[in-house]
Amino acid sequence: MLVAGATGFAGALVAYLLWRHPRFELVTISGRSDVGRRLEDLYPRYRVPLQVSELDRGQLDGIAAAIVAYPHAAAAPTVAMALESGARVLDLSADFRLSDLATYEQWYGPHPCPHLLDQAVYGLTELHREQIATAALIANPGCYPTAALLALAPLARAGLIADVVIDAKQGVSGAGRTAAVETTHFAYTAENIFPYRVGAHRHRPEIEEQLAALGASLAVQFQAHLAPLDQGELVSCYVTPTREICAAQLNELYTDAYAEEPFIELAATPPGVREVRETNFCRLFAACDEHTGKLLVFAAIDNLWKGTSSQAVQNLNLMFGFDETEGLL
Amino acid sequence: MLVAGATGFAGALVAYLLWRHPRFELVTISGRSDVGRRLEDLYPRYRVPLQVSELDRGQLDGIAAAIVAYPHAAAAPTVAMALESGARVLDLSADFRLSDLATYEQWYGPHPCPHLLDQAVYGLTELHREQIATAALIANPGCYPTAALLALAPLARAGLIADVVIDAKQGVSGAGRTAAVETTHFAYTAENIFPYRVGAHRHRPEIEEQLAALGASLAVQFQAHLAPLDQGELVSCYVTPTREICAAQLNELYTDAYAEEPFIELAATPPGVREVRETNFCRLFAACDEHTGKLLVFAAIDNLWKGTSSQAVQNLNLMFGFDETEGLL
Amino acid sequence: MLVAGATGFAGALVAYLLWRHPRFELVTISGRSDVGRRLEDLYPRYRVPLQVSELDRGQLDGIAAAIVAYPHAAAAPTVAMALESGARVLDLSADFRLSDLATYEQWYGPHPCPHLLDQAVYGLTELHREQIATAALIANPGCYPTAALLALAPLARAGLIADVVIDAKQGVSGAGRTAAVETTHFAYTAENIFPYRVGAHRHRPEIEEQLAALGASLAVQFQAHLAPLDQGELVSCYVTPTREICAAQLNELYTDAYAEEPFIELAATPPGVREVRETNFCRLFAACDEHTGKLLVFAAIDNLWKGTSSQAVQNLNLMFGFDETEGLL
Amino acid sequence: MLVAGATGFAGALVAYLLWRHPRFELVTISGRSDVGRRLEDLYPRYRVPLQVSELDRGQLDGIAAAIVAYPHAAAAPTVAMALESGARVLDLSADFRLSDLATYEQWYGPHPCPHLLDQAVYGLTELHREQIATAALIANPGCYPTAALLALAPLARAGLIADVVIDAKQGVSGAGRTAAVETTHFAYTAENIFPYRVGAHRHRPEIEEQLAALGASLAVQFQAHLAPLDQGELVSCYVTPTREICAAQLNELYTDAYAEEPFIELAATPPGVREVRETNFCRLFAACDEHTGKLLVFAAIDNLWKGTSSQAVQNLNLMFGFDETEGLL
Repeated sequence: MLVAGATGFAGALVAYLLWRHPRFELVTISGRSDVGRRLEDLYPRYRVPLQVSELDRGQLDGIAAAIVAYPHAAAAPTVAMALESGARVLDLSADFRLSDLATYEQWYGPHPCPHLLDQAVYGLTELHREQIATAALIANPGCYPTAALLALAPLARAGLIADVVIDAKQGVSGAGRTAAVETTHFAYTAENIFPYRVGAHRHRPEIEEQLAALGASLAVQFQAHLAPLDQGELVSCYVTPTREICAAQLNELYTDAYAEEPFIELAATPPGVREVRETNFCRLFAACDEHTGKLLVFAAIDNLWKGTSSQAVQNLNLMFGFDETEGLL
Repeated sequence: MLVAGATGFAGALVAYLLWRHPRFELVTISGRSDVGRRLEDLYPRYRVPLQVSELDRGQLDGIAAAIVAYPHAAAAPTVAMALESGARVLDLSADFRLSDLATYEQWYGPHPCPHLLDQAVYGLTELHREQIATAALIANPGCYPTAALLALAPLARAGLIADVVIDAKQGVSGAGRTAAVETTHFAYTAENIFPYRVGAHRHRPEIEEQLAALGASLAVQFQAHLAPLDQGELVSCYVTPTREICAAQLNELYTDAYAEEPFIELAATPPGVREVRETNFCRLFAACDEHTGKLLVFAAIDNLWKGTSSQAVQNLNLMFGFDETEGLL
Repeated sequence: MLVAGATGFAGALVAYLLWRHPRFELVTISGRSDVGRRLEDLYPRYRVPLQVSELDRGQLDGIAAAIVAYPHAAAAPTVAMALESGARVLDLSADFRLSDLATYEQWYGPHPCPHLLDQAVYGLTELHREQIATAALIANPGCYPTAALLALAPLARAGLIADVVIDAKQGVSGAGRTAAVETTHFAYTAENIFPYRVGAHRHRPEIEEQLAALGASLAVQFQAHLAPLDQGELVSCYVTPTREICAAQLNELYTDAYAEEPFIELAATPPGVREVRETNFCRLFAACDEHTGKLLVFAAIDNLWKGTSSQAVQNLNLMFGFDETEGLL
Repeated sequence: MLVAGATGFAGALVAYLLWRHPRFELVTISGRSDVGRRLEDLYPRYRVPLQVSELDRGQLDGIAAAIVAYPHAAAAPTVAMALESGARVLDLSADFRLSDLATYEQWYGPHPCPHLLDQAVYGLTELHREQIATAALIANPGCYPTAALLALAPLARAGLIADVVIDAKQGVSGAGRTAAVETTHFAYTAENIFPYRVGAHRHRPEIEEQLAALGASLAVQFQAHLAPLDQGELVSCYVTPTREICAAQLNELYTDAYAEEPFIELAATPPGVREVRETNFCRLFAACDEHTGKLLVFAAIDNLWKGTSSQAVQNLNLMFGFDETEGLL
């Protein structure tokens, strides 16, 4: 295993999870900054004693899988290089999440490697388990789409979504390690909560494309908020249903979809992000509101774990034939 | 001035604001606990050296106004006693917020003093300024209705609201001083965010009744969340409009409604609760989402200040003919 | 394994650690409140599906070890009962930490079972590993003594401590689940930091007794502070040395003492509590201050983990002949 | 009034305090970044509608006082320019705090304007009130020295300090707006507390020089810690006294020193920083520890207010003959 971009929050956590994993061997970690430093000095909590190196093609020889944790546009060329070297690739960026090139370019600019889009599999484990197992290139989902799609998939498949408002709240780690001071400085974010990217978040087309694939083609109202916590993400979904549905039916839909899932918890009470902190769990709660006729679904995940890095390991487990929960419980 | 119930968060803050007020004289503070202690020992930040007493009728003699900060049902009899003594009354509880008795009793149980409902004026300053000035009994609004109604009033008056989802986030002080451990203990609320009272919050009928009075009779989707901050409240409103409206028209609606308001700020960027912390300001931001056709309105207030106690003082200023901003800037 | 008092913070965490432990079987959890509820409903993060029962003597039959997580004075009788039933006992309370009865009674009141004091072993793993392995009764250390003694033991053994100031900072979980509102309510503790029990903390005699056993008999200046975080404890020790010592010698003292310890980390930079959060690690940093001639030692632990519950499991591993790190890495 | 460097935390707060001040007129704010932006867009909470300009000599014409909020070394030339233009100057940097040039250069490097050192007055209001009133150049104290010196001055003057350990804790705003990510990113500082600059903080010589001026020449043990809060600073002082002193005498010392001070509060219980948040108050608590014979003194301030910007305004009030509390209560 090789992690490219191990000095950011997502890459460092993948490196940690692979380092302590009972089946995988983490051989190389590279970064675009901090070359020569040990990861445990950058992230003492993770206790990974490997040194950050500069990535070159030779390091990819004999590597079974490369995890690419670069920003969008920077990721694609490295993904291409790794695929050429024979490695399977799990990409944490947005470069291969959208199957529609035009949509990608509208939101992210020119795509460096559009010829690879066809072979990418969208890595939301619970939705695409079979294709993930055999894929050469996995596009790991965004954190918001992970929670939103797990919340909405049973309703989308049942043709129940006429309209939906998704109000999402996330901790500061979601902004990354080097984001602008306004979104990460403790003195700005403590005792604060605010909406950002009003009406224009890049995760919206990703949610819409996946919902459409599940049978629900619609314009989604998605709004993100920054909350004063480090890790954690809650999505609150307000669904106007296409037809009336009672609580027992709603419950059955979610039980049918998720009862056997090792990392989905159907909670008896509304979930809090603290309950899934530093785990790969997604905790769900669905209810009918008799007053308005709407369906309410809440999903809590850890944006860095199930929303990013531990879901990557869940996918790697599948790709290499291990139990999906290996190294994650 | 007399504050009954000065030992809770809301009553203590009213006492502080009146104590430092240039025009009012705070004479008596009473409490149902901590009798004999000085308020500055319970709330050192507020530096109010008065002693908490047990309330009796004699204390009301010659009092121009009584502020009642008791829980619902406990408040009404004290309100009645104060009115009988000749004082004007500002009630912070829910007892006189709903004009419809049946709705009150559905949510709060039997009403101790239904005969007083008729004379109560709903104390959302910006909506009912004239009646407040002359009222004998003011029902100070709930914190969520304050933010939600300020956000939605211009749309309601314009007949624009076909449907609305209100997703609200609030700090821990909103749960009060003596709430159950799960909602206030630092070790439960730190690094957490979660929905509560799913589909059944008592502030919903209050919002609905006031919206109806503004011309928008509809079933409102209202959902509250607890966020890890002490003071602050953000409401995110997603409105399905009855007709198309462009950004310029939306802007005009809000400018017309609020340009002259001393405590409403129309922000150029999405508001954060930190920007209104410990102020009487409500900071608003409205936008059209061209993708979905919905209107988005965000309102940030301090739940203890504009959401409760400083709005009470704003109302008292009006009631006694002072400048509305006196003691609040 | 049986955990008595599993509904408090410490007991619940022990239950969780034993539940997921590869060698131990957690059979029974009891509590003095919440009987009949499942632990996973009280502490969703811990995902322990066992039901809380009321403790009776019969439950102790065939139990290899009982972990008692009651408050002081309440713990001792249960400890006695468990010992009589043939179980080995690990007590998390203060009841058997002090070998001197008079000191105990000065700080905690009458001792319910003084006859058991003799057989108790002080469970600071790194200091008493051999006695712990064979003991019938372990008194698990207080959280502050754990960090302070690990920080100071090498200096105490070397006869280097002429005087010491210990300034300790701890998160809110240290106050327990049911403490008074002032020390745990989010709205009091957020954005706050303050000293408590000035000059009179019960952990001081515990530190002094253990330091004396290591050869350093002195009156210790110990001061605790509450900091706005949930889990974590930092002790900053300022030692006036009995003789001059250079940095190389200081370094050698700590390396000799701890280089082989699986849970002690000698850090290259001053430690933060975040680096040991939810681990059994103690992270240490020692330095000579040439300006004042004092020795500075900083120790960071998680007060609920190494400071309480994971150290309990470390001791149980030793008591039952397993690798000390089993279930803790 | 002119504020140079209004875009940093300290300068912005001074600008806010002067903007709302009843006696002063804030005419110009300048910055080395964000030129052309309005301060209320950078700091919405402060609601100062002035535009940030680039500083030039012409702006100083007719200015009664210039407040310089630049980093050390950058401040001194601007101070010199302002003095030449005839303005009185209050400097928030360290450039004129140390009267000893050699000490300055040891900690801060070459001094740009050593010839001005002689005329600078150290602006700890409570210690140097008379000189401040007439000074042309005020060196506003560092935040740690402010709290430490207010805590220790009565003991220093009484010749009581044989030795002292000062353990200080401060919020993240103390690191400034543009500090390195490790000390300000929410995801590093939340749920963390750690010591920094072990044995080598620049505020130590400042404390020592001022203590010496009060009669206590000694090497001070000073250690700073970063705590997870935005504003607030607590210093815990452990004094080994030169002679025995009883609680009544200690109390008398502090009462004599501070009973008449408008901004010093002698608290009946140990102070928390929340109690002085966003105020100019310093809250003090002193105690004798009979067990060790040491004297304990705790001081809480808001590092940005009394520790920096509101103390600046307190000094400006004195310099211009206004009541010391003007604009600060």
